[in-house]
Amino acid sequence: MALGERGGWDKSESRYCGVETDFNDDMPHLLSFNLSSGGFDFVVASLMDPNYRPSLMEKDIGGGSHVLPFAGSDLVLSPSQWSSHVVGKISSWIDLDSEDEILRTDSETTLKQEISWASHLSLQACLLPSPKGASCANYARCVNQILQSLNNMQLWLRIPLVKNDDDTTDFIPSGDSWELWNSFRLLCEHHSQLSVALDVLSSLPSANSLGRWLGEPVRAAIIHTDSFLTNARGYPCLSRRHQKLITGFLNHSIQVVISGKLNHGVPSVSLDSALDHTGTNVESSQRHSLRPYLDYIAYLYQRMDPLPEQERFELSYRDFLQSPLQGHNPLFHIISDEFCTIEFSNYYLSFQPLMDNLEAQTYETFEKDSVKYIQYQRAIGNALVDRVPDEEASSLTTVLMVVGAGRGPLVRASLQAAEETGRKLKIYAVEKNPNAVVTLHSLVRLEGWEKTVTIVSCDMRCWDAPEKADILVSELLGSFGDNELSPECLDGAQRFLKQDGISIPSSYTSFIQPVTASKLHNDVIPCLCAQVSPLEAISFSSKCALALQVKSHKDVVHFETAYVVKVHSVARLAPCEPVFTFTHPNFSTKKSNQRYKKLRFEIPSDTGSAMVHGFAGYFDAMLYKDVHLGIEPSTATPNMFSCCASSSVCFVESYFDTGLQIPAWFAIFFPLRTPVCIRPGSPLEVHFWRCCGSTKVWYEWCVASPNPSPVHNSNGRSYWVGL
Amino acid sequence: MALGERGGWDKSESRYCGVETDFNDDMPHLLSFNLSSGGFDFVVASLMDPNYRPSLMEKDIGGGSHVLPFAGSDLVLSPSQWSSHVVGKISSWIDLDSEDEILRTDSETTLKQEISWASHLSLQACLLPSPKGASCANYARCVNQILQSLNNMQLWLRIPLVKNDDDTTDFIPSGDSWELWNSFRLLCEHHSQLSVALDVLSSLPSANSLGRWLGEPVRAAIIHTDSFLTNARGYPCLSRRHQKLITGFLNHSIQVVISGKLNHGVPSVSLDSALDHTGTNVESSQRHSLRPYLDYIAYLYQRMDPLPEQERFELSYRDFLQSPLQGHNPLFHIISDEFCTIEFSNYYLSFQPLMDNLEAQTYETFEKDSVKYIQYQRAIGNALVDRVPDEEASSLTTVLMVVGAGRGPLVRASLQAAEETGRKLKIYAVEKNPNAVVTLHSLVRLEGWEKTVTIVSCDMRCWDAPEKADILVSELLGSFGDNELSPECLDGAQRFLKQDGISIPSSYTSFIQPVTASKLHNDVIPCLCAQVSPLEAISFSSKCALALQVKSHKDVVHFETAYVVKVHSVARLAPCEPVFTFTHPNFSTKKSNQRYKKLRFEIPSDTGSAMVHGFAGYFDAMLYKDVHLGIEPSTATPNMFSCCASSSVCFVESYFDTGLQIPAWFAIFFPLRTPVCIRPGSPLEVHFWRCCGSTKVWYEWCVASPNPSPVHNSNGRSYWVGL
Repeated sequence: MALGERGGWDKSESRYCGVETDFNDDMPHLLSFNLSSGGFDFVVASLMDPNYRPSLMEKDIGGGSHVLPFAGSDLVLSPSQWSSHVVGKISSWIDLDSEDEILRTDSETTLKQEISWASHLSLQACLLPSPKGASCANYARCVNQILQSLNNMQLWLRIPLVKNDDDTTDFIPSGDSWELWNSFRLLCEHHSQLSVALDVLSSLPSANSLGRWLGEPVRAAIIHTDSFLTNARGYPCLSRRHQKLITGFLNHSIQVVISGKLNHGVPSVSLDSALDHTGTNVESSQRHSLRPYLDYIAYLYQRMDPLPEQERFELSYRDFLQSPLQGHNPLFHIISDEFCTIEFSNYYLSFQPLMDNLEAQTYETFEKDSVKYIQYQRAIGNALVDRVPDEEASSLTTVLMVVGAGRGPLVRASLQAAEETGRKLKIYAVEKNPNAVVTLHSLVRLEGWEKTVTIVSCDMRCWDAPEKADILVSELLGSFGDNELSPECLDGAQRFLKQDGISIPSSYTSFIQPVTASKLHNDVIPCLCAQVSPLEAISFSSKCALALQVKSHKDVVHFETAYVVKVHSVARLAPCEPVFTFTHPNFSTKKSNQRYKKLRFEIPSDTGSAMVHGFAGYFDAMLYKDVHLGIEPSTATPNMFSCCASSSVCFVESYFDTGLQIPAWFAIFFPLRTPVCIRPGSPLEVHFWRCCGSTKVWYEWCVASPNPSPVHNSNGRSYWVGL
Repeated sequence: MALGERGGWDKSESRYCGVETDFNDDMPHLLSFNLSSGGFDFVVASLMDPNYRPSLMEKDIGGGSHVLPFAGSDLVLSPSQWSSHVVGKISSWIDLDSEDEILRTDSETTLKQEISWASHLSLQACLLPSPKGASCANYARCVNQILQSLNNMQLWLRIPLVKNDDDTTDFIPSGDSWELWNSFRLLCEHHSQLSVALDVLSSLPSANSLGRWLGEPVRAAIIHTDSFLTNARGYPCLSRRHQKLITGFLNHSIQVVISGKLNHGVPSVSLDSALDHTGTNVESSQRHSLRPYLDYIAYLYQRMDPLPEQERFELSYRDFLQSPLQGHNPLFHIISDEFCTIEFSNYYLSFQPLMDNLEAQTYETFEKDSVKYIQYQRAIGNALVDRVPDEEASSLTTVLMVVGAGRGPLVRASLQAAEETGRKLKIYAVEKNPNAVVTLHSLVRLEGWEKTVTIVSCDMRCWDAPEKADILVSELLGSFGDNELSPECLDGAQRFLKQDGISIPSSYTSFIQPVTASKLHNDVIPCLCAQVSPLEAISFSSKCALALQVKSHKDVVHFETAYVVKVHSVARLAPCEPVFTFTHPNFSTKKSNQRYKKLRFEIPSDTGSAMVHGFAGYFDAMLYKDVHLGIEPSTATPNMFSCCASSSVCFVESYFDTGLQIPAWFAIFFPLRTPVCIRPGSPLEVHFWRCCGSTKVWYEWCVASPNPSPVHNSNGRSYWVGL
């Protein structure tokens, strides 16, 4: 019945809530009791009699005529019931790393029998019991074997959500259950069908430590009834920290499963009054004892803030890697400045892959909604006032050139700034794309701007400007600032700018931070975005058969490419650090747009160890003086996105909120070919280069410490932007 | 003129000795002085005036008409002189990781200019100066860019041979120059053209620490004149430890380069009496001051023990990976027991890839030389005496079956054992290979064994034996013991063995040890040994263009395959540990040939950190009671190979000797897809599995600690042996 309605747009898995059950060989009853009476959407049910041991069976019965004691066949429930409503729970007694060889062998046999049976039933997922000790190599080896030939089923490895800073238990190395998961997944080579089910217990680790899991493939959170508190009216409820955690999970498509016994003296009156909306026969004697817990989770779900329109629109872009369209493939090698687009197979590949792939209406929505042009307008207004004193406002005309005018938003912003400040303006709107020029012409006609605005349908590099500009306005920035060659373009356009002229933006800086991003890591596959639309590509990328094939190919090229992506299921492990800064205009004689930066990241001591799959990149631009525009989380443009806390301590925590921490302008993702594990106290040292050749610009990057990685993208062999 | 003659068989690079020179723009003189007067084979000479700085040049001369101040053009020396006698020394002032941006930029420009010039001259190698500080990322990034498009030239990174246990200098992280090299090569991704030139100084690190370098791609040892002592007669000589080190280098194809000034008051009489054997005009005033050092190195070289015949024969097999012929490729999938060979494309692919590819004469040499059959004879003799008391020697006849008789060596050993012990014998020689059976028949006829020996030309699995055996003799062991399915074969043959019968061998155990083996790591490429002979394959594998192409393909399959290899240039980082043991006969009811072993290796604390590229594997077999046969270095069969010291402290040291530490029976090499760096105090935990399916047997392996690796060869996907 799902947790409730949130306007119909929430299609994520987290709408559904499950319940963990004991072994029961009457599966039809188990299912109807938990679904109809309980209100749950699915059961996590043992598939095999827990008393079964292969070594005992063989002694009892010879000849192989025995039947394995499974909970129920595919005749007692229909295939669709099995696959929609049952997650298979693998026998919890299995221990593949036991010193006892018989137990070890029995465990391996049983594990394989149960997974094979679950595949036969077409279950969507099986829950694997937690490793029993610190060593899990044999368990991982066996699961890895299974994964090599598994159908589409997911395997959820159960991991208790535990991190003891002081205690090193026998069970968990360094007291941190993340280490156990990390070992297991490394042994299984980041297999995309291996994921995590977290056991949420009554005490929770630190927020930074919890934050790591958002970048891991967590599919389910199993909440134990003894983790619930009791409210004044006798009902179960959760602590504030638990609430925050669960809300964060629900916001990251993580399903909740209730486990345990009724622990709360819920008043019987309330129990009776709980209506059953499914309409099936419910015997009140069979009223499900865990219903109050489900009701509480549903309450949390329904209480979550609805997502704003833009965020809802972008839901399907969450964590979807978009290939940068320049340089990736020689066939698509394009001249990539604001003024140039090249036609290729009926697609205009310009420097804003996402926006150009959107339909016209969406384009318009973006243009209207965005606070970007308000910032430009403020910056232009301030520049006009600085340049022209009030007393000369009516006599002096400022020459402003919009470099890459597109459909005209910056022309409009400039005119509004002039009106606001009472300054006189002459505008040249330079645009190479002939389609955009058509739009520009009708815009000028419609708005009656003919006297003020001159449209120049020309490649800026060939344009013989009739006069020099006071102000040069451009929006050439990519997610990583300079990654769409704004420095090179503005250096070129500078010859039209007066010696004391102003460039808007006047400077910009790129930023990176290390992230855990297992989904992005697994999705680094050949992007065919130029041939399929982003939405098609989403379903395309979900075809795991292809992904597996490509992954096994270990294509270096795709791990040396930066991707535009709306990062959502990532853990941000340390605050951003600035990378490269460019300032305009730049009249220095020996100017170079090559850059080299060494960066150090410290991860907070209470985080524990974490896996770095790559770096999220952002930019911040100074448009003019104090007017800035940017997506760097700690300083993202106000009013446009809610700001993240910038302190190093709580930056992870803030991502458990369900608001709009993630800027609408997508980030960039620089992957690492081999993810790097970092530990508190051992800083992560990273080097980034911006290299310029005679025909192209590219980045190289590497990790130097704690363990050196290869230098990625040497000579721009995998990814570059053509000059 | 080379260091001298060692019977003409030493074709390695280490015969040639070089000298480091200062910048001199009279290259013809420099060359003739050092080669003709000095007796050196090559010079390591600066290519560029050390006063050159690009940033100064640009200020001085505009327009680009200036000529770079190189030492000499390709007209003053012939191309063959340049390439045969000059190693280019890159300007030692360059510092790509300086905080000074001008110096950094000048360094990058100069480095690229000099390498480009050296490529133009077709030099074989360039010597890169040591990194100036602990940080070398920008230097490595630039060298890595150069390596991407370099011709066949080698780049030798100069590294001082320093390891201070206490001092952590600014220059070298953790006081260990190996760390510097390790960072550099990781950043350059183990590029096969990047190697090491070690600066040998007057004080040497510990033997274990030195031992690491034998597995690294060291091409040259630069010995400074102030590392030499002065002997009683005033001549330069080296300490015992230095002598051992240099001898070890010479034995590993590492060239010596002399560097520095004359530091020793060599008597002038001796200098005059030093004859010049080149016969060219030598002015005595130009007598080379470093000649006494060269003479001493030549003395060390000539004093080295000559290699025994077998070792010389095997020289070309050193560090040459041979693909196991079973299971590697589905086309070559063969039934791999002693009794079966399958014809494929005119090649008999049997279980001893090396021996079967040898010519008949070599085969015979092996059969005669090997102490293996003496050990078998001893074992059979002891078994006969145990089985038949002296008083029944003339009445009781022992039934002995040779399983896989081949050309008959075990039949001969059995008959000799019977004669020696005065026991009566009846032999069944079972062999499937019809060609070998032909040889067997003529052998029996020639030797007059017709009454004792019955030849059975039959697949053992179909043979209906007329009686049961007292003793079952076989030689089914591979380099890793059970890797050629001896357990499965002997389990099958056991039905012919009496309940109290004896199997020779009675048990065998495999062993592994972690090794640094950069050459093997770089050579893990598709082996086409089934289509080319090993000797052809050697030249084949040297085609680095192919190797690079394949390496960039990162083919998982080849990194999940075990190779037969005569390991030579490897560093053995810890003593061997036993892996799997099999015992015969095995009458247990629930027998399984699956095995699982967890191993821990501690590296000696004075070694420092080291890189593990994989594991060298060996076996040891108990033939009968105390008669054993094996290649595990610490217990390798006496008289056959000189033994290695088995103590954990000096096992590396022993490899600096030039004797016969390396067993003639080749080892097996299990690679790691990604090499693992280990540090003293953090044990290396390794897991090995022997897995048995219905149609094949395979190994899986992984590292669990310090950092988990993927489980290699899951389900035998890359490498298996067919049943």
